[in-house]
Amino acid sequence: MEKLAVVAFGGNALLRAGQRGTISEQEANVNETCKNLLPLIKNGYNLVIGHGNGPQVGNILLRNSAGTKLYGLPEMPLDVCGAYSQGFIGYIIEQQFRNVLKANGFEKDILTLVTEVLVDKDDPAFQNPTKPIGPYYSDEEVEKLKSETKDVFAKDPKGNGWRKVVASPKPIEIGNKNSIEKLARSGNIVITVGGGGIPVYYPEPGRLEGIDAVIDKDLASSLLATQIGADEFYILTDVPNVCLNFNTPQEVRLSKITVSEAKNYLKDKHFTEGSMAPKVRAAVQFVENGGKECIITEANQLSNPEAGTRIVQD
Amino acid sequence: MEKLAVVAFGGNALLRAGQRGTISEQEANVNETCKNLLPLIKNGYNLVIGHGNGPQVGNILLRNSAGTKLYGLPEMPLDVCGAYSQGFIGYIIEQQFRNVLKANGFEKDILTLVTEVLVDKDDPAFQNPTKPIGPYYSDEEVEKLKSETKDVFAKDPKGNGWRKVVASPKPIEIGNKNSIEKLARSGNIVITVGGGGIPVYYPEPGRLEGIDAVIDKDLASSLLATQIGADEFYILTDVPNVCLNFNTPQEVRLSKITVSEAKNYLKDKHFTEGSMAPKVRAAVQFVENGGKECIITEANQLSNPEAGTRIVQD
Repeated sequence: MEKLAVVAFGGNALLRAGQRGTISEQEANVNETCKNLLPLIKNGYNLVIGHGNGPQVGNILLRNSAGTKLYGLPEMPLDVCGAYSQGFIGYIIEQQFRNVLKANGFEKDILTLVTEVLVDKDDPAFQNPTKPIGPYYSDEEVEKLKSETKDVFAKDPKGNGWRKVVASPKPIEIGNKNSIEKLARSGNIVITVGGGGIPVYYPEPGRLEGIDAVIDKDLASSLLATQIGADEFYILTDVPNVCLNFNTPQEVRLSKITVSEAKNYLKDKHFTEGSMAPKVRAAVQFVENGGKECIITEANQLSNPEAGTRIVQD
Repeated sequence: MEKLAVVAFGGNALLRAGQRGTISEQEANVNETCKNLLPLIKNGYNLVIGHGNGPQVGNILLRNSAGTKLYGLPEMPLDVCGAYSQGFIGYIIEQQFRNVLKANGFEKDILTLVTEVLVDKDDPAFQNPTKPIGPYYSDEEVEKLKSETKDVFAKDPKGNGWRKVVASPKPIEIGNKNSIEKLARSGNIVITVGGGGIPVYYPEPGRLEGIDAVIDKDLASSLLATQIGADEFYILTDVPNVCLNFNTPQEVRLSKITVSEAKNYLKDKHFTEGSMAPKVRAAVQFVENGGKECIITEANQLSNPEAGTRIVQD
């Protein structure tokens, strides 16, 4: 049986800091990332891609809000904005990857699945929403929104005003996971859990509904990798290795660490929250749930089998 | 082998005339449509769903334009807006259908595939764009847009100003059609060709790119039905039958017509362009390409095997 890899990359692989976010920018970025994934295809891996949507869903929320202000269009809830972003990002990854494969003599179907991810409505994260999303609001705007909605807002620490904050609950189950596994194991490239998946919950038994939340995309991809029995889980980022004392003269690049070591480093706060820390946690989750190894690295390092930081069992 | 049906329904099955387009409205409409599809599931059909996106992509284009005006966000081209709408509409159909199936004791995976549809860049439709999309513009706005873009605009016959018009080329090939067929024939419900599919073409051999166009969703679903060898093709609309002399004292409800009869009625302009005419053409296309029959009817008629208008071979 061919080996199965899950590769997760961030919305920043699509839209980089400082870019406006035009389609040609995003297509060029995605094209480069897809080229970087070719070594995995050449090595015979079946591939499932999970991706972030931070900058993209941010822009969707802004357009949403602008459409309401200018044209009185109804607001779309966050789960629906996530679905928009899955269609959009899936489309551009699929198209660029197809072109890259074709140029390199590969023929594979690339399938983008709209993907819901189950969360628990009693997840403590819902008592303490922390993830800022969407546009910034002034004091007056936020007072008005508070009186009209049940939304929670937090003041931006950089002084840009207020933003809506939502919960970031733990993913529990990846929707259609059996189909994802079957499709991937029969040689198709599957794009799924975009933006961490569309969060859904059971308001009552047997009935699913969307919920205002953002699931961490690395945790969702990690759960996916476990639930489909992936051999390898790659988390792509913008540095070649996980480091201790990152960006200091004492910086140490890690090439291989065990789960216990990773947990200790996390405890000692070696990794930045909102950046490397959630990636290391997602890696630990995969290996603790039986995965062989998780590799955290930069996309352009994938041709080098020695590159990156491997998180392995103790 | 179980029988395979393709069912196409319009964006209006999701967002009805006079509704604002809130999510709860659209969810309720979709829920009702999904309940109406249950008789097909109960009769053992494997199911592929194609759907329109007219009202939804209209709102997406408005939000897009508002985001550019208010926040200077880059415009998203039409293919990307189509991809947004596929993610969004697929998500709500998938979720409502899953709930409806569960409530009725069925367990099936429902998969929404982002779907590209190939068109020919030499299609004569590109020389004569006729399909109005997006917001209305004033004379001044349209002059400015004309100087900044290559877009074509047409004056709204009802005097609401100008709108961008795009081509409506013929669909040539449904992306991932083999995977769609395999998934459906193994019992999954597949949602695909949303909004007629995202139009793509080959600017050069081997490289696909999106293009500003709208593919007729009934024609795309018809091609899909042919390419996956569907036994039945259903086109759902808001009347139970195709009629001659519709809405006149001489109205005749058709229950069964041959392809030749259908073509004659089309020639004699019995059916409204932009409404029943394209549906009858899509039906004719399916049957002429070897399909057994196409049924045009209202969703709530599906429990009655005698209902609707059947277009059959001569």
